[in-house]
Amino acid sequence: MSALPHSPTTAPNPDDPVFRVHEGGKLASVPTKELRDRTDLSLLYTPGVAEVCRAIAEDPSLSFRYTTRRNTVAVVSDGSAVLGLGNIGPAAAMPVMEGKSVLFKHFGGVDSVPVCLETGTADELVEAIARLAPTYGGINLEDISAPRCFEIEERLKERLDIPVFHDDQHGTAIVTLAALINAAKVTGRRLASLRVAISGAGAAGVAIAGILRRSGIQDVTVCDSRGIVEPGRDDLAPHKRRLAVTTNPRGLSGGLGDALSDADVFVGVSGGTVPEENIARMAPGPIVFALANPDPEVHPEVAARHASVVATGRSDFPNQINNVLAFPGLFRGALDSGAPAITEAMKLAAAQAIADLVETPTANEIVPSVFDERVAPAVAGAVARLA
Amino acid sequence: MSALPHSPTTAPNPDDPVFRVHEGGKLASVPTKELRDRTDLSLLYTPGVAEVCRAIAEDPSLSFRYTTRRNTVAVVSDGSAVLGLGNIGPAAAMPVMEGKSVLFKHFGGVDSVPVCLETGTADELVEAIARLAPTYGGINLEDISAPRCFEIEERLKERLDIPVFHDDQHGTAIVTLAALINAAKVTGRRLASLRVAISGAGAAGVAIAGILRRSGIQDVTVCDSRGIVEPGRDDLAPHKRRLAVTTNPRGLSGGLGDALSDADVFVGVSGGTVPEENIARMAPGPIVFALANPDPEVHPEVAARHASVVATGRSDFPNQINNVLAFPGLFRGALDSGAPAITEAMKLAAAQAIADLVETPTANEIVPSVFDERVAPAVAGAVARLA
Repeated sequence: MSALPHSPTTAPNPDDPVFRVHEGGKLASVPTKELRDRTDLSLLYTPGVAEVCRAIAEDPSLSFRYTTRRNTVAVVSDGSAVLGLGNIGPAAAMPVMEGKSVLFKHFGGVDSVPVCLETGTADELVEAIARLAPTYGGINLEDISAPRCFEIEERLKERLDIPVFHDDQHGTAIVTLAALINAAKVTGRRLASLRVAISGAGAAGVAIAGILRRSGIQDVTVCDSRGIVEPGRDDLAPHKRRLAVTTNPRGLSGGLGDALSDADVFVGVSGGTVPEENIARMAPGPIVFALANPDPEVHPEVAARHASVVATGRSDFPNQINNVLAFPGLFRGALDSGAPAITEAMKLAAAQAIADLVETPTANEIVPSVFDERVAPAVAGAVARLA
Repeated sequence: MSALPHSPTTAPNPDDPVFRVHEGGKLASVPTKELRDRTDLSLLYTPGVAEVCRAIAEDPSLSFRYTTRRNTVAVVSDGSAVLGLGNIGPAAAMPVMEGKSVLFKHFGGVDSVPVCLETGTADELVEAIARLAPTYGGINLEDISAPRCFEIEERLKERLDIPVFHDDQHGTAIVTLAALINAAKVTGRRLASLRVAISGAGAAGVAIAGILRRSGIQDVTVCDSRGIVEPGRDDLAPHKRRLAVTTNPRGLSGGLGDALSDADVFVGVSGGTVPEENIARMAPGPIVFALANPDPEVHPEVAARHASVVATGRSDFPNQINNVLAFPGLFRGALDSGAPAITEAMKLAAAQAIADLVETPTANEIVPSVFDERVAPAVAGAVARLA
């Protein structure tokens, strides 16, 4: 056999456990029906299959019963904002999307396949994804750069009759709200009365601001790298101009330090750093969610000098805010109920369901473990009830 | 739980074994690596996965080692020419593509996923498929209408560095050539000297004419529904004009009966019917491949009154010409060897490999059984040797 044109002569760290576990990829496509003989062949394939095709052609809704659409979600990316690595392109994004598909199956029993698309503009990406819709029961958008991601998701939701869900926005937002519901309990605060400062006006920041407001929290202020997002600024992109008028009810201006002054809650989804003195300016016994990965905006031990509750995105500290608490159950519920979309009400219900699984929240336990097997069924049930 | 908006109130023939076996689809997506604890999670997903992404971003060829591209072929259709059902659209085409994916895995060990695309023009289909390329190790085009399929395949082959293969053309052509190699042996004829008449100038007919000529057969004549494809006709689409100048070396004109007169071989891929009297006009002891499904152009028992060797596309007669003898091994060989394309030489070698598996061909055994486990490895080996 000749040399492999696609294969490098030397592999990077082939003994590294990460590369070892990635050898050959992380997913397989496996028949679920037996193929033993010509009879099976004539049922699974021609000529029998024609009968099923004809039935679906007459009633397309049957594709949700007689094809893999029944249980399959595509994890779709263009590789434009992968983890903290930036725009590394579709081929390099594959390991993340495959990993996500592994999580979909493991935690939600959802069959999932990675789809990494070579596209440029938002138009091209919308078009490419819309064309794929007949194949899947749902579309999980992943690692698509902001602000394109907002428009892309909105346009796809309008166009398609299957759930479209950008996890970097709404998965993070749902789990953040779940954690905040319990953190409020732990600190004896009313959720609706919380004063919240969010650092980061990208995919996660915008979605968190949205779900917090819909949960009844009135006082949410968002900062980007230049400070508080407010109508007086003339440097705001359209999605931030919208944010400027829907948040910041006290009309603050200035930097993150100003937003944090007397705030009950800090939510960091920026990747920046917050000096201890700004945490010290918050209301007494505040709630600090420093979610940047791998480096939280403020080290959890530093935050704990001031805060009553601290959460991060990391698994090696208490209170990990991890999207995996939400997306497997969300799609499980949507697929089981045939929901054509994941609505705002479903997202709120999912957050409440996650929060409710912690019977007695404490400072070190405001969310369930990602390995808690009750999570996905609880989220799925909450979603399906609203379908 | 509420009613299922996607589900019909009554299922069509839910007790029919075909519908029963299609319930929920025929494929699952399954993790190949263990996810037991936080350590596994940190290797399969964040933060570990970032290392693999970074490596692929630097050297995209690594995606063929560390992602599912290593072993995954997409079975892609727009549903424009599904079986004998015509343009039934992408959702209704899914059961065929899933079935094909089942065959890919069962016979070739190739992970395969269906991709059914909502597209209109050839441009749109080419664009949609090209954008998907970073996800897969190969593209099997399926059930795309002629003559669009020729241009679509050619453009994708030019554009992509992974194998693109339209099975309705080349799978059929490879297995037809394999069968003809052995039928020539059985009837004591030299392959290159055969006089061949093909009925059908669609995907299969054009590809069969091509591979037969490349195998050394000089005298090939093709007929469409209006008769012999020849330069004197003014009603020919571009792909038929090309055919008119590359085939029909004796400059015949007229109908299929004229092409069959004194022909050694009839290959039917038209779905039409051929009267017995036309078979009777062929050379003595001819070879008749009546491949239309489910109704051969001439009933095999009628053909056998005249012919020395008869083959069909059906499993209930001897000599079934079935693409499954070719495509699983072809892609197995291409993936294993990292071949960026499936070349004409590989197709010829695959046909020879299939033919060679029948040690002593007889009138009732010119091709191996589709369940012969030696077939895919033999084809894969032949392909890989040429990569």
